[in-house]
Amino acid sequence: MATGPRAFSRDMKIRFSHCDPAGIVYFPNFFDMFNALLEDWYTDGLGIDYERQVLIDRHSFPIVHADCDFRIPSRMGDTLTMTLLLDGVGSSSMRFTIVGHVGPQERLRGHLVVALVSRDTGKSAPLPDALRSKVERYAAECRGWSLEQVPA
Amino acid sequence: MATGPRAFSRDMKIRFSHCDPAGIVYFPNFFDMFNALLEDWYTDGLGIDYERQVLIDRHSFPIVHADCDFRIPSRMGDTLTMTLLLDGVGSSSMRFTIVGHVGPQERLRGHLVVALVSRDTGKSAPLPDALRSKVERYAAECRGWSLEQVPA
Amino acid sequence: MATGPRAFSRDMKIRFSHCDPAGIVYFPNFFDMFNALLEDWYTDGLGIDYERQVLIDRHSFPIVHADCDFRIPSRMGDTLTMTLLLDGVGSSSMRFTIVGHVGPQERLRGHLVVALVSRDTGKSAPLPDALRSKVERYAAECRGWSLEQVPA
Amino acid sequence: MATGPRAFSRDMKIRFSHCDPAGIVYFPNFFDMFNALLEDWYTDGLGIDYERQVLIDRHSFPIVHADCDFRIPSRMGDTLTMTLLLDGVGSSSMRFTIVGHVGPQERLRGHLVVALVSRDTGKSAPLPDALRSKVERYAAECRGWSLEQVPA
Repeated sequence: MATGPRAFSRDMKIRFSHCDPAGIVYFPNFFDMFNALLEDWYTDGLGIDYERQVLIDRHSFPIVHADCDFRIPSRMGDTLTMTLLLDGVGSSSMRFTIVGHVGPQERLRGHLVVALVSRDTGKSAPLPDALRSKVERYAAECRGWSLEQVPA
Repeated sequence: MATGPRAFSRDMKIRFSHCDPAGIVYFPNFFDMFNALLEDWYTDGLGIDYERQVLIDRHSFPIVHADCDFRIPSRMGDTLTMTLLLDGVGSSSMRFTIVGHVGPQERLRGHLVVALVSRDTGKSAPLPDALRSKVERYAAECRGWSLEQVPA
Repeated sequence: MATGPRAFSRDMKIRFSHCDPAGIVYFPNFFDMFNALLEDWYTDGLGIDYERQVLIDRHSFPIVHADCDFRIPSRMGDTLTMTLLLDGVGSSSMRFTIVGHVGPQERLRGHLVVALVSRDTGKSAPLPDALRSKVERYAAECRGWSLEQVPA
Repeated sequence: MATGPRAFSRDMKIRFSHCDPAGIVYFPNFFDMFNALLEDWYTDGLGIDYERQVLIDRHSFPIVHADCDFRIPSRMGDTLTMTLLLDGVGSSSMRFTIVGHVGPQERLRGHLVVALVSRDTGKSAPLPDALRSKVERYAAECRGWSLEQVPA
């Protein structure tokens, strides 16, 4: 049986330094992991040169919305698989769902909305064509998945 | 004319270290500021001994939900007033709205849902009476405010 | 009796989020506090516009050396006074001693060496005259202190 | 020709979030990477269960000294190889040198001194035998290296 396209995901190890005196991950660190996942997706998933986008093409990708439901706490020594789904692509923004799971157990689920802004004008800018075509291909693949399948 | 009750707020200075290569605050740092605001509210607003709660009474206050809309970017040298409103109190949880503003200009608005968990059982625990009475008094005060008044 | 010049210092509250699962401050957070102290000294101690230096005059102030001896651990709820002494001023660098204390009890002692670099050439640049004169005045004041007096 | 023992090292990618508005790594993040390297060495290099040490055996491993010379700045997109050498083993402490390099180019060099403390007494404790034997074997291997060879 054919395997379909796979969501972009990365294993992230929960470190001592991610955790607070109650022994669980201090929640802002999960948003930092979301951002790392997004950065890896640009670079390794899409093959976009993120540094070039930011430093040479003078785009920035500010996060205009972030949310997360933290369902099951995570502790030092856990390894979470963080899976990135692209839910929607607008003229100058993208909306993502991120699921953090340990095997089939969903630990957390969040969203990021990323805008594209010109660093020179400070205004939103349309996604460049080269980026848009790659991004829309990934969004189309994501539509083929059920969110319930993600952790499988 | 009588001044009504005031929302708990703290001025937070945006530092060099909060910002990213695009020159704006790296968004997880805002969630860290939200947590600092909450901690100061326990201690300075309610007069609760937060350390005692965590270390001696063996409660933890995990964040089970966090979200934020980042409307206007903030930069090094800005000072944001972070205002905390308590929207709802459940049997073992509290829901907060946090507004970050510079004078009357709203920069961001987010929410935190905090649960109370026994560190010994790992299960949610009812708010202790001493905490509950203080918390409900603050929630009642918050009901008297219009969110639009917050930054005034 | 006249009070002599005072070292620049700031009280810094140890937060839940600064601490690790062993309940003590995760040490990189102290270096973050050192940097905050330095930033406050530029702005509030010297009256230098740090943002202007970085963003308009296109200088950067990279840390080329940092060290710290952590003598007594600090915990959530502690308030440390961080005191900044300027030990030496070179043509394009400054060397600082930072002492963190709780009343007379010294908790930690560290050093930072800061270089001045032109962001356009990437090379070290001499301290601008306006900065140098303020910095040397502070260094001269620091020579009048015994390090043993700092926490007093 | 026989390959000799290899120093423990990890590649660490410099992310957007590690960097400051001047575009280079904010230096406390390097100390966070040092700690991650140490944690990986316990777990993957020595086969010690670090979580168990901290949570069950109730040891903590506070950093009592840290220093670093930052020789060449690092930027988003760089990948640094971080190499860990164990310079000395005392009755209840270990001293490490860490070299961060990109190929043969040394970017930074620092040290950590780690103590072993009982979380129950708050006092330093001798290294447990199982840990000591593994640690001393690694220290002996390190004596066979020239620091100059590390980046090779």
